[in-house]
Amino acid sequence: MPQYCILFLFFLIFFSSSSHASVQDFCVADLKGPDGPAGYPCKSPANVTVSDFVFSGLAKGGNTTNIIQAAVTPAFVAQFPGVNGLGLSMARLDLAPGGVIPFHTHPGASEILVVTRGHITAGFVSSASTVYLETLKKGDVMVFPQGLLHFQVNAAKIHSSAFVSFSSASPGLQILDFALFANNLPSALVGQTTFLDLAQIKKLKGVLGGTG
Amino acid sequence: MPQYCILFLFFLIFFSSSSHASVQDFCVADLKGPDGPAGYPCKSPANVTVSDFVFSGLAKGGNTTNIIQAAVTPAFVAQFPGVNGLGLSMARLDLAPGGVIPFHTHPGASEILVVTRGHITAGFVSSASTVYLETLKKGDVMVFPQGLLHFQVNAAKIHSSAFVSFSSASPGLQILDFALFANNLPSALVGQTTFLDLAQIKKLKGVLGGTG
Amino acid sequence: MPQYCILFLFFLIFFSSSSHASVQDFCVADLKGPDGPAGYPCKSPANVTVSDFVFSGLAKGGNTTNIIQAAVTPAFVAQFPGVNGLGLSMARLDLAPGGVIPFHTHPGASEILVVTRGHITAGFVSSASTVYLETLKKGDVMVFPQGLLHFQVNAAKIHSSAFVSFSSASPGLQILDFALFANNLPSALVGQTTFLDLAQIKKLKGVLGGTG
Amino acid sequence: MPQYCILFLFFLIFFSSSSHASVQDFCVADLKGPDGPAGYPCKSPANVTVSDFVFSGLAKGGNTTNIIQAAVTPAFVAQFPGVNGLGLSMARLDLAPGGVIPFHTHPGASEILVVTRGHITAGFVSSASTVYLETLKKGDVMVFPQGLLHFQVNAAKIHSSAFVSFSSASPGLQILDFALFANNLPSALVGQTTFLDLAQIKKLKGVLGGTG
Amino acid sequence: MPQYCILFLFFLIFFSSSSHASVQDFCVADLKGPDGPAGYPCKSPANVTVSDFVFSGLAKGGNTTNIIQAAVTPAFVAQFPGVNGLGLSMARLDLAPGGVIPFHTHPGASEILVVTRGHITAGFVSSASTVYLETLKKGDVMVFPQGLLHFQVNAAKIHSSAFVSFSSASPGLQILDFALFANNLPSALVGQTTFLDLAQIKKLKGVLGGTG
Amino acid sequence: MPQYCILFLFFLIFFSSSSHASVQDFCVADLKGPDGPAGYPCKSPANVTVSDFVFSGLAKGGNTTNIIQAAVTPAFVAQFPGVNGLGLSMARLDLAPGGVIPFHTHPGASEILVVTRGHITAGFVSSASTVYLETLKKGDVMVFPQGLLHFQVNAAKIHSSAFVSFSSASPGLQILDFALFANNLPSALVGQTTFLDLAQIKKLKGVLGGTG
Repeated sequence: MPQYCILFLFFLIFFSSSSHASVQDFCVADLKGPDGPAGYPCKSPANVTVSDFVFSGLAKGGNTTNIIQAAVTPAFVAQFPGVNGLGLSMARLDLAPGGVIPFHTHPGASEILVVTRGHITAGFVSSASTVYLETLKKGDVMVFPQGLLHFQVNAAKIHSSAFVSFSSASPGLQILDFALFANNLPSALVGQTTFLDLAQIKKLKGVLGGTG
Repeated sequence: MPQYCILFLFFLIFFSSSSHASVQDFCVADLKGPDGPAGYPCKSPANVTVSDFVFSGLAKGGNTTNIIQAAVTPAFVAQFPGVNGLGLSMARLDLAPGGVIPFHTHPGASEILVVTRGHITAGFVSSASTVYLETLKKGDVMVFPQGLLHFQVNAAKIHSSAFVSFSSASPGLQILDFALFANNLPSALVGQTTFLDLAQIKKLKGVLGGTG
Repeated sequence: MPQYCILFLFFLIFFSSSSHASVQDFCVADLKGPDGPAGYPCKSPANVTVSDFVFSGLAKGGNTTNIIQAAVTPAFVAQFPGVNGLGLSMARLDLAPGGVIPFHTHPGASEILVVTRGHITAGFVSSASTVYLETLKKGDVMVFPQGLLHFQVNAAKIHSSAFVSFSSASPGLQILDFALFANNLPSALVGQTTFLDLAQIKKLKGVLGGTG
Repeated sequence: MPQYCILFLFFLIFFSSSSHASVQDFCVADLKGPDGPAGYPCKSPANVTVSDFVFSGLAKGGNTTNIIQAAVTPAFVAQFPGVNGLGLSMARLDLAPGGVIPFHTHPGASEILVVTRGHITAGFVSSASTVYLETLKKGDVMVFPQGLLHFQVNAAKIHSSAFVSFSSASPGLQILDFALFANNLPSALVGQTTFLDLAQIKKLKGVLGGTG
Repeated sequence: MPQYCILFLFFLIFFSSSSHASVQDFCVADLKGPDGPAGYPCKSPANVTVSDFVFSGLAKGGNTTNIIQAAVTPAFVAQFPGVNGLGLSMARLDLAPGGVIPFHTHPGASEILVVTRGHITAGFVSSASTVYLETLKKGDVMVFPQGLLHFQVNAAKIHSSAFVSFSSASPGLQILDFALFANNLPSALVGQTTFLDLAQIKKLKGVLGGTG
Repeated sequence: MPQYCILFLFFLIFFSSSSHASVQDFCVADLKGPDGPAGYPCKSPANVTVSDFVFSGLAKGGNTTNIIQAAVTPAFVAQFPGVNGLGLSMARLDLAPGGVIPFHTHPGASEILVVTRGHITAGFVSSASTVYLETLKKGDVMVFPQGLLHFQVNAAKIHSSAFVSFSSASPGLQILDFALFANNLPSALVGQTTFLDLAQIKKLKGVLGGTG
């Protein structure tokens, strides 16, 4: 095949310039760089290896020995730089018996959930205040539209778990109770803007470490 | 100028075909058509008039004789078909003395507010639970990033008002209290997913017309 | 609480107009309508129920008694109308011992995979022809950037399975062998544009039902 | 190969469901349907043929016997339905000796031009009023950023021509002179908003068919 | 509540990792950093305060003692770093009696205007050269589709003003007269590409500081 | 005109602040900076000249004395920094008699091709494995939807050439044969994931420089 080999050299020459233009197939995050509205700067392709595209942190569930008896383990761009710029990320939910992922939103992404163990009661509320509520079995999939309040509750007597995917590498996670009670927003202002009783507010501020 | 006139005819002929291709400068919503992920179908350009691009419904404030002593008057695509597909919409806020726009989110848009009368205390909470809170004077502008919980409270002894703009023709509006208490989500489930006391939940369900 | 009830009526009146503007929280596909570049038209919100947002078709794996000893079960917008316009969809991969999901691309989406059983060797090739190859254990996650050729192979002696999510409700699926050999593209032209030998082409056309 | 054939049947069965999900590789415009913000509804894939993706209307230049001694022949979505939803379109420019494509903008797209015959002097002006001006030879490429005023003038003694591509299937085309003088905008208002003399305005309104 | 406090510590531990992933709720511009196609790099969230999201520069109108008896005061990303990446910005228009915001475009954004004082005659011209013209009263809203030529003229005997919002943090502003006459584009070329008389061109170049 | 000159000074003063906000009309790539998901950082506008927007590298065809008797000459962002962030780029195809641009995809862009010399047989294959195949004459245009496998073959006895444009500044280019055979992907794995015979794989790995 010696003739082929000579031709091969020509082949390489001509495509090498064009393939050079194609480096932005992906943009693995350089987390040290300043991020921008579209994500982090790209790690040099020369330094990218397969390990940038693989994440093992979801293999085990988080510790559920806590007030909610549940854990959210994220694989967002901050944990998994390979998703930078790809419009996708994941997380793992673990709910011990009685566990709850309380009301929360993802300001920048829709979410799709698949149950991998147990049963999970999940729900979201629309702008029209309609509730979409379902108890999901293993293998069931549910989608939560972007930015809407939703929650997940263990509906089994055993540990339940799920994988969730997001339509953004950086979906955000705003937990309602933390937003309302785990900061220094004055209790009176919380009351005025939520119609909750002051005693209720102060009680939850106490639990969640809020002041004011 | 008779020679010019003849040339003008030629001019028209050649550009008429290309200008025909340019009809999608805008896409005034035909609200009777089924909407899609990007908005409503376009009204035929032949039927579009300037009145499609003008909206007078924000000239007067809404009635503030209500529980929140405040009113939100929207100029979203449903009220103002001219904004369809343009990535923009508006609303007017009116707050009587003591008036409050309670905690809410816009699932699909960022918001920018300008005070036009009185003083308004506005705040939003980030995913990290940090509060960004300011009392705004007439002419002050504040921006609320997409999907985050925020509120506005009258900080003056007089009626205050503001115009707000959104980065979407259909920003959505999810009012926290309505999402939690103005529907049939079972009280026990609300409690489990918000840590609120049952008595508190039932009280607000009573006020806001919720059941369960 | 009679005073509250009166106020509540006012409350409803003023927010009802604005909440009416918020119907486009989601856009469940009306699959009978003509689709457009952004997806299908929206089902009327009045007819939407929680079942539009839940899909049970991934609970069981597809039948793997076939030439590839593997199955891809999609939950794209065509199967799961609730994802329309949300920029997300899912699928389930099942690989019997020896099973292979052959080289393919998703023209319109990036993909993120999580192994739920067994071991899977997965790989993708960049524009620079670099191979990113890894054998994944249960719980491992791997991301495949948009449009690049990739494959998955069972690396276990048992049945392996995975869930994959996509950054589009309609990611597409172009299987290399089908694109080359399962149609009427003349064999000579396939040869000219792939450098494969004619005998090889005719053999695979035979297997995959291609003509010419 | 009888065994292969049996396996082939299995192969078809399992991929047929998933390939069914992949119809939205493209969305050839059904120009009879109402368009939306993202483009026209899709023609049924079953009726799509290669002729939907091929356009022969740019093979010949437009007639340049007109006031500008030039012609713009578009291949936008209205002429070439195959580009619907693909974020691309083309046009052909023909300039007789002395020909001019006068100042214009494309409100919804950037443009890239390649000279195929003769010489063309092209320029655009930035928001900072800086002029970027160049005389291009055959094979030279120039890019015009979205929405900025630009023009092309024949710089050769022979007929010159170029192909231009746009970053939208429906880029729009607003010719400055037509916008100012070829409609019923009152001359006094044109004067007030352009600082042009009334005599100048009335002269060009006369040439271009404007009234008022 | 000591038991709660202990639980609270667990609560913090498990959510702290995930909330860390959520920093990109917003991306306040670091104006010293090099900008990119999507905007400026983000200021570190630790240094962000509420003042980054508040802008007081629109509280007063600009000085209208100038040739157009009008002023445009921008709150674009360059003046108001908080809007970076949020797809929104604002400006304030002030028009003394007789004041005019001359014909201009925003290459990268649609605009929505609300009159806050006086009367304003506003108009835009479509690609089809149709004029959409209206005299707006206080509180009236008008929308100007992206990239189209438009203007605003004071229609009252008093000072008029308006707030305008844009669908981009960096909408651009190309004033027609400045683009044509305030630079070194040769007068002959301006004439050739606008059909204006040379005397007219030279007169306006004189007024606006252009050369050539 | 002394009065005008004074007014002109006022004019400059008031618009200078707003025009300053408009620098992001374009974002010429600073190729030394780290790129991000949306492209390269912007070169300072003060250093941008018209030469950043003009590219002469497509004036001549590439050398076709190679195995495919063809050449692809790109004007992507890496070669032509002016297209950064504009959603457009170009390339030139040259095919000697017998020349072939083999099966390839552009992972991040749709493509539009116009024949400028000779005849070219071009085809693409959809996700449904349908072939769209046409022999194009000079001036014919064909569009290739994003991410789908396609090819171009010289159909003339003379040198043929074409210009192609892409809907991205960085469309990528994945040549099928290179992806399969020009790297270290083990032959057995290539066989398993393509159904090609091992002898065929080893032959092409030999030609294209692959190992394993």
